Amino acid sequence: MALPFLAEAGSTPRIFNFASGPGVMPAAVLAQAQRELFDWNGSGLSMLELPFTGEDFKSVMWRAQDSLRALLAVPDNYRILFMHGGASAQFSLLPLNLLGGAERADYLETGYWSRRAVTEARRYCAVNIAASTGGTDFDRMPVQEELHLDPGAAYCHYTSNETANGVQFHRVPDSGAVPLVADMTSDFLSRPLDIARYGMIYASSQKNIGPAGFTVVIVREDLLGRAHPATPTLFDYRMQAEAGSLLNTPVTFAIYLAGLVFQWLAERGGVAAMECRSLARSAQLYRAIDASVGFYRCPVQPAHRSRMNVCFMLADSALTPLFLSGAARHGLVNLKGHSMLGGVRASLYNAMPDEGVSALTAFMRKFAEEHAHHV
Amino acid sequence: MALPFLAEAGSTPRIFNFASGPGVMPAAVLAQAQRELFDWNGSGLSMLELPFTGEDFKSVMWRAQDSLRALLAVPDNYRILFMHGGASAQFSLLPLNLLGGAERADYLETGYWSRRAVTEARRYCAVNIAASTGGTDFDRMPVQEELHLDPGAAYCHYTSNETANGVQFHRVPDSGAVPLVADMTSDFLSRPLDIARYGMIYASSQKNIGPAGFTVVIVREDLLGRAHPATPTLFDYRMQAEAGSLLNTPVTFAIYLAGLVFQWLAERGGVAAMECRSLARSAQLYRAIDASVGFYRCPVQPAHRSRMNVCFMLADSALTPLFLSGAARHGLVNLKGHSMLGGVRASLYNAMPDEGVSALTAFMRKFAEEHAHHV
Repeated sequence: MALPFLAEAGSTPRIFNFASGPGVMPAAVLAQAQRELFDWNGSGLSMLELPFTGEDFKSVMWRAQDSLRALLAVPDNYRILFMHGGASAQFSLLPLNLLGGAERADYLETGYWSRRAVTEARRYCAVNIAASTGGTDFDRMPVQEELHLDPGAAYCHYTSNETANGVQFHRVPDSGAVPLVADMTSDFLSRPLDIARYGMIYASSQKNIGPAGFTVVIVREDLLGRAHPATPTLFDYRMQAEAGSLLNTPVTFAIYLAGLVFQWLAERGGVAAMECRSLARSAQLYRAIDASVGFYRCPVQPAHRSRMNVCFMLADSALTPLFLSGAARHGLVNLKGHSMLGGVRASLYNAMPDEGVSALTAFMRKFAEEHAHHV
Repeated sequence: MALPFLAEAGSTPRIFNFASGPGVMPAAVLAQAQRELFDWNGSGLSMLELPFTGEDFKSVMWRAQDSLRALLAVPDNYRILFMHGGASAQFSLLPLNLLGGAERADYLETGYWSRRAVTEARRYCAVNIAASTGGTDFDRMPVQEELHLDPGAAYCHYTSNETANGVQFHRVPDSGAVPLVADMTSDFLSRPLDIARYGMIYASSQKNIGPAGFTVVIVREDLLGRAHPATPTLFDYRMQAEAGSLLNTPVTFAIYLAGLVFQWLAERGGVAAMECRSLARSAQLYRAIDASVGFYRCPVQPAHRSRMNVCFMLADSALTPLFLSGAARHGLVNLKGHSMLGGVRASLYNAMPDEGVSALTAFMRKFAEEHAHHV
């Protein structure tokens, strides 16, 4: 049983996984999953084999939902759903569920993922781009004064953290009386939230929640029951809310692991502690970039930089493959930027050990020293 | 590391899991998953943490799809998709993808699950019940002569094995020129298939494929590209076929385990060998029922009995809870019948060891002897 980044010096080398998702999981959670893989809780069965209608799995499911409600202080008038399909499914399911006869929705266009959400929403309604930062290559998030909101919109959608572009909202946009909807896939559980400001938030599981497998939807009760008639029953928020997300077999193992992650998070001070960590760690990395006198460059304006996905370029882009292969030899893996954007991306999800960030900044300094003549 | 049903006598008791799904998985697959949980293939990372866009996961994905194609001799003009959402999602996605402007579809109504498929299909089109065995409580499958097929139907849907009712087709219905579509969730990979007779088949993963997490769709290429405009892009068969089922993050760990199960199956003689085993094992169990002179009773006509889900009742239904708790004390668990139907259900998926079936029949005989005065 190898515990990569808990291993003693000289044994298994430390591997730090900077993937944008699926990404690093807490070693303690993996260790528990490994221990229990053949025999969950003395049942003699693997969690992978437990029927979802049995009391054993249901207790795991309810505990995971209760833990999440506690972690984020989700008010009683919000339902927590565990849905199939990933956040990309929500790009369609959101308009299908929330338009409710309205024909317009507001979208903030702030990078690769919000654009994907817009493309899909246009198949269902007229999209008002309430603001776009595309003119400056998504180097910042829009400020409140820039938003041109449509009071007749069914909802206003934004992406709290653009995983591919490395740009993040550090405040909540104000959409007035129009329900605010956020795709929080890549910064969910990285900081406290005032859920009451939202009509709905959603986040797929393969970043700070656990492995790939399901999507958390937190939706205000009064928004349920508006689904378009063509909405598959399984993807109707109201139907899933009434069935406790058990309309059909959920992705049981992913939910079990998420429950362990929620518990791990709670034991480490919850989302407030995660916010402190992500602030400190991302600041350490951005300092290393900014201190490189142009060797590394982060195109995102400082006030809008992501604390989860730190994206940067090498001034000499021809050095990028060398940087990535050298980093991998130092146990710093999956640092390649999004396929559409290139460069380097370091994802600093909750489960990334602080040592991983220190090791990366040390490697960056060393690499820059060795290759500085290229600038 | 406990290996329940490989354990030596006197150590961990043997547990046999008869759940209808998620259900028993091969012990060898669980053992490999446990070994590799912290370090997949020397990567230093868990399969749970691998990015889905990386070569490592992609090789796992393609190998799983290739293995499945080989196991079932899937012809080249069929695409294999790994979809999110379970078979219940396909109840909606099938009409959304295959109606293609037609307004009618044929459905064979043969039990609980085909009824669920019909209910959902009625939301999208006029359903012609080409045959129903509801008049005799689904005690058999319809014969070819009973089918009243609609030549204008977009497709003809049937459920090859009714998991809740314990009734199974042992031949393929003939739908003429109308594409035949089968929900094979609970008997997929339990016998060879002549794929060319089908327009499409689908099966969710939590029976003979692996854990809960995804749905296999095998669809003939000429049926792609007919999706209703309201179909979410992620659930459009053509889009997923073009993207190699990588339109968004798939449920990576479930696909990895499925690949291991496919390999395990191939090493044991493939689906032809599984058919022999399931014939022998189900016959053993039905013999025990029929030999009990009325103590146990299988309501399904012998020629239509399921080889995967053996459903039976106790003549004195008041004894059922005692039977179930006694069985559980003997390590025979999850034998409770479907919540709508009661009674007992023993699911004999490929991963059930033969010893489990022997242990169950032995317990049944013993229980009947002890309680025969109740009849």
